[in-house]
Amino acid sequence: MRCFDSDYMEGAHPEIIRRLTETNMEQTCGYGLDDYCVEAKRKIKEACGCPDAEVYFLVGGTQTNSTVIAGALRPYQGVISAETGHINLHESGAVEASGHKVISIPAHNGKISAEELKKYMKSYYEDDNWEHMSVPGMVYISHPTEYGTLYTKDELKAIRSVCDEYSIPLFLDGARLGYGLMARGTDVDLRTIAETCHVFYIGGTKVGALFGEAVVVTDSRLFSHFFTVIKQRGGLLAKGRLLGLQFDTLFTDGLYFKIAGHAIDMAEKLKAVLKRKGYEFFLETDTNQQFVILDNDRMEELKKKVSFGFWENLDDNRTVVRFATSWATAEEAIDELAELI
Amino acid sequence: MRCFDSDYMEGAHPEIIRRLTETNMEQTCGYGLDDYCVEAKRKIKEACGCPDAEVYFLVGGTQTNSTVIAGALRPYQGVISAETGHINLHESGAVEASGHKVISIPAHNGKISAEELKKYMKSYYEDDNWEHMSVPGMVYISHPTEYGTLYTKDELKAIRSVCDEYSIPLFLDGARLGYGLMARGTDVDLRTIAETCHVFYIGGTKVGALFGEAVVVTDSRLFSHFFTVIKQRGGLLAKGRLLGLQFDTLFTDGLYFKIAGHAIDMAEKLKAVLKRKGYEFFLETDTNQQFVILDNDRMEELKKKVSFGFWENLDDNRTVVRFATSWATAEEAIDELAELI
Amino acid sequence: MRCFDSDYMEGAHPEIIRRLTETNMEQTCGYGLDDYCVEAKRKIKEACGCPDAEVYFLVGGTQTNSTVIAGALRPYQGVISAETGHINLHESGAVEASGHKVISIPAHNGKISAEELKKYMKSYYEDDNWEHMSVPGMVYISHPTEYGTLYTKDELKAIRSVCDEYSIPLFLDGARLGYGLMARGTDVDLRTIAETCHVFYIGGTKVGALFGEAVVVTDSRLFSHFFTVIKQRGGLLAKGRLLGLQFDTLFTDGLYFKIAGHAIDMAEKLKAVLKRKGYEFFLETDTNQQFVILDNDRMEELKKKVSFGFWENLDDNRTVVRFATSWATAEEAIDELAELI
Amino acid sequence: MRCFDSDYMEGAHPEIIRRLTETNMEQTCGYGLDDYCVEAKRKIKEACGCPDAEVYFLVGGTQTNSTVIAGALRPYQGVISAETGHINLHESGAVEASGHKVISIPAHNGKISAEELKKYMKSYYEDDNWEHMSVPGMVYISHPTEYGTLYTKDELKAIRSVCDEYSIPLFLDGARLGYGLMARGTDVDLRTIAETCHVFYIGGTKVGALFGEAVVVTDSRLFSHFFTVIKQRGGLLAKGRLLGLQFDTLFTDGLYFKIAGHAIDMAEKLKAVLKRKGYEFFLETDTNQQFVILDNDRMEELKKKVSFGFWENLDDNRTVVRFATSWATAEEAIDELAELI
Repeated sequence: MRCFDSDYMEGAHPEIIRRLTETNMEQTCGYGLDDYCVEAKRKIKEACGCPDAEVYFLVGGTQTNSTVIAGALRPYQGVISAETGHINLHESGAVEASGHKVISIPAHNGKISAEELKKYMKSYYEDDNWEHMSVPGMVYISHPTEYGTLYTKDELKAIRSVCDEYSIPLFLDGARLGYGLMARGTDVDLRTIAETCHVFYIGGTKVGALFGEAVVVTDSRLFSHFFTVIKQRGGLLAKGRLLGLQFDTLFTDGLYFKIAGHAIDMAEKLKAVLKRKGYEFFLETDTNQQFVILDNDRMEELKKKVSFGFWENLDDNRTVVRFATSWATAEEAIDELAELI
Repeated sequence: MRCFDSDYMEGAHPEIIRRLTETNMEQTCGYGLDDYCVEAKRKIKEACGCPDAEVYFLVGGTQTNSTVIAGALRPYQGVISAETGHINLHESGAVEASGHKVISIPAHNGKISAEELKKYMKSYYEDDNWEHMSVPGMVYISHPTEYGTLYTKDELKAIRSVCDEYSIPLFLDGARLGYGLMARGTDVDLRTIAETCHVFYIGGTKVGALFGEAVVVTDSRLFSHFFTVIKQRGGLLAKGRLLGLQFDTLFTDGLYFKIAGHAIDMAEKLKAVLKRKGYEFFLETDTNQQFVILDNDRMEELKKKVSFGFWENLDDNRTVVRFATSWATAEEAIDELAELI
Repeated sequence: MRCFDSDYMEGAHPEIIRRLTETNMEQTCGYGLDDYCVEAKRKIKEACGCPDAEVYFLVGGTQTNSTVIAGALRPYQGVISAETGHINLHESGAVEASGHKVISIPAHNGKISAEELKKYMKSYYEDDNWEHMSVPGMVYISHPTEYGTLYTKDELKAIRSVCDEYSIPLFLDGARLGYGLMARGTDVDLRTIAETCHVFYIGGTKVGALFGEAVVVTDSRLFSHFFTVIKQRGGLLAKGRLLGLQFDTLFTDGLYFKIAGHAIDMAEKLKAVLKRKGYEFFLETDTNQQFVILDNDRMEELKKKVSFGFWENLDDNRTVVRFATSWATAEEAIDELAELI
Repeated sequence: MRCFDSDYMEGAHPEIIRRLTETNMEQTCGYGLDDYCVEAKRKIKEACGCPDAEVYFLVGGTQTNSTVIAGALRPYQGVISAETGHINLHESGAVEASGHKVISIPAHNGKISAEELKKYMKSYYEDDNWEHMSVPGMVYISHPTEYGTLYTKDELKAIRSVCDEYSIPLFLDGARLGYGLMARGTDVDLRTIAETCHVFYIGGTKVGALFGEAVVVTDSRLFSHFFTVIKQRGGLLAKGRLLGLQFDTLFTDGLYFKIAGHAIDMAEKLKAVLKRKGYEFFLETDTNQQFVILDNDRMEELKKKVSFGFWENLDDNRTVVRFATSWATAEEAIDELAELI
């Protein structure tokens, strides 16, 4: 069966597997102090145009989100997120488990607006009881969002501008960053991200790696003892070189961007197929996730031949489902899908 | 100046002061194991019609909310609250600081509805990703709510019924419970509360005591080692007898109800005055808090003679303010107010 | 029966009760923003010789310890304490509940030594794995200690000197501070404490107040948003004036020192009685707590006439018990004890 | 250079790499619900003789320790550990970060004794102030310990017996379990572990896997919603099959035991070499870690040719160092070492 459920169904890009095999019996020190990590960090900083940034490797997205947030916030602070933000809905309360409130503001297809962020900040500080409320200490956004949508460069700058006004850092969850950067028509590239965010991460798990997220810290005042924070939160991989080697591979000869670009090509092809067949979109995006409305009968029929993700019940008769492409999606898979539907 | 800002502006009912003075040099053991506490617990259980309940005394409301919630929940659980619930907005993230998410659902003048609660629970368990979300482990309501509104007996029973369906406990924040119980027209008395809630508290701080909240646990399976939890959360008063003596006084000869009733009488008189004078209500309630809309000019004028609480900006020219009466409100204060406005 | 179990068995000094009664029906704003708090803070700062210090009032000792520590530490930090420190043994894991390790070092009758503190810090930073360990971020001492012992001025300075070398703050738990300051022969006064510690508190609960601890912060860089931290930890008293008024009273005309001095007089008298009667001391101190070794038979006999605190089993036949005097101990109580034993 | 620093310096056993390569482009669902995980769990349960156990896969040791402990304890509980336990010293306060105290008891070359455990439990419950102390809610041991030592079957049973007496679960950290099970002369096999512990884990990271720890829960009452706890603590791997496939490989045809046995053979050979050369042992163990005392001069000389781990300074002139073998240690490495020293 062809599966479009998510972008983490396969292993890793073959080049990563090749190098893991090749280097398997080498002896290195642990905890990310090895040469593979050093080299990967150098390449990432170069790609970001940030020679002075600090780079840390963690294993997964929820772990990265909660570790970054726990490491940056003081105990009385919370983190602002879109209502639909991953940290607010789908991380089992990981941020709260580290003692911090997720302060939710309205989401528009997964995005927050600088205006509404500003409105929240303003009303917070105007409130007589502001000292009785969780102090907003960070802004969290995802790019692409959980809905596959993207910020424009101007939108990112406007959000950063509000952050600057209130002296709080901007954190960008880039679990699917590659798919955002390679989207057609986006004006946001990796350097824009690095210039706009105090901290962000480059997702590996969903973009070609077995696992791994590369945290880039552009403002060195944000953390202190972050290595220890990572250890404390269970995010320190003993054989850290596995992360270094994977990111070194992904950031050699632009592999990360090439394979993310392939996923976008496949998504565009998928969209064309779905449109041609008359499918109604709940949300058509420029990234690797597409949201389609299916009659429930048709959905049950389709499920027998192809798999996809459940998103939400639209009404009693119709369901929103998600199709995701990835670096691993074969062109034939889309062709087969076209024949099946 | 006459102050209607809140219901915790004075000390304690004179009878409490009298008994504190009288018993001041007695020697008792600490931590609530003294005879005053024993006696107060007995009287409270009797008033609740719950001889088998357990009663604990804590010092303040935020402390009580976060201690009860931290004591009852498992680490993966969150607590459901109205968006406008005190734990969600005005406790500086105290619940989150103990590791738990406050899961907010819509509020209607401070209240949640059984229907929307049920809808949330249903959609939670139907979600494919439910295991990736904070598990709803308790329902928190306040009575009166932060808006001075009250649940009816049927509404409480309907909420309890949803709780039973999903096997989660119902916790009622009664920081202003006396004012709710003595409201005209309510069909909810203390026994109703005790029958409907797994745990609730009877607020002393705002109803005649210097400080103190009496937690009543009707379902003994809810907590284990709750004394230690209270100690750990900083809520254990060394001279616990101060709490016992206050609640013993309040629950002797119905003092708690009498003085709460007085606050209601004063609130009704206040409402009549405000209406007669043509003031527009934002929210007219049956309890001790009344919300009035003032033109900003008029508000500034009024502020010179009388004080009240800021609630929210209604629009650029008008503000919602709160007038609160209490057990300590003198009838003359209302008369004076009538002349001033 | 005469009770020497602890120093929190009575209510408050009569002058406090008198003023509580006198001011009971005054209306003030809440949360410690009232004039009584302002005035009490002024007097405390004056007594400390620290016009620039910040003063906060909390309700009890465990609450104060865990709030100060949670407010000052970053998430990766722990607090160093004597093994026998109150935060390490008798606060139900309150510090750990806020996410921080209590790093214990050896205790000598309740005290730590600057040498051993230095040794710990040195070995920590020399350890190859230091980044895998809780980072020492504060030093906690109590004065008097849980054993009634006292630091000398030189000892305090030596500890502070180690703190300075490693840039970590020194926090002094003064739950019984008055009894330490008035001990005969001590060279440590309130100004010494204020000069030596980054933060400390002046205990009220055990020295004349109904309840209350006054936190004095001499290094303003230590906290940010400490009001919100107090609120979050459940330590913010709605009727904050109760704390202000009590400390205002205690710091008017040196009342705090006078009544603490009385407890010391009574302790000296008690020691003389016990010695005269041939009792063996486990630990004889200069403060209000005395530790005596009793044969178990004698202890059971004595218990029928007088009460005291259990401290520990010395061996199968002997027990260490604690006698505590306080501001409230009547001279006749000691005389009676002398006759009974 | 030959490295004996630790047992996590190489990648994975070649068979694991082979299967990762072979299955790389298969599509599976995420989060450990795939067939590889199902099969690996089945094989592990069979090897443990526990068909009814539950098995969970996590990524690393610190993560596993803190997740198991956070998932099992109630907020007022702490976990008992040897002073030298990994959770007490080398996890950056991870357990405390989840709100729980590590209650340390004496260690004897890394081990605790049932007698001292019992003594602690007894004195805890006899203490008048037990309710003011962290409630012991779990016993943590490691096997092999951090010092490479092993419990005997009788010792494990005696510890379990104390746990049963006080109704608290026994948790065994098996980060190096394979090396313990294959030690010569041990009477503890995997079934003994499974019979004696309520929960334990089989370490993969140090015994042949790229990463991964298999948690075996033999008492199903211990956890509820443990999947969500793992997610919340950042331990849920998106591509969970990577863990399943590795453990499936390790538990096929006894590979785990074979490769662990090889490490033991190498350790025995290493010991023989070191002894023959006259090296003094700080601690000679039956597992893969050996602790040797080196004069500092000799150590510096040796460091130029071979690497090993620093353990501790014995005195001003001598250092304790650790040599570790592993599944990956080549026989020639030992031969070379023999020539070098």
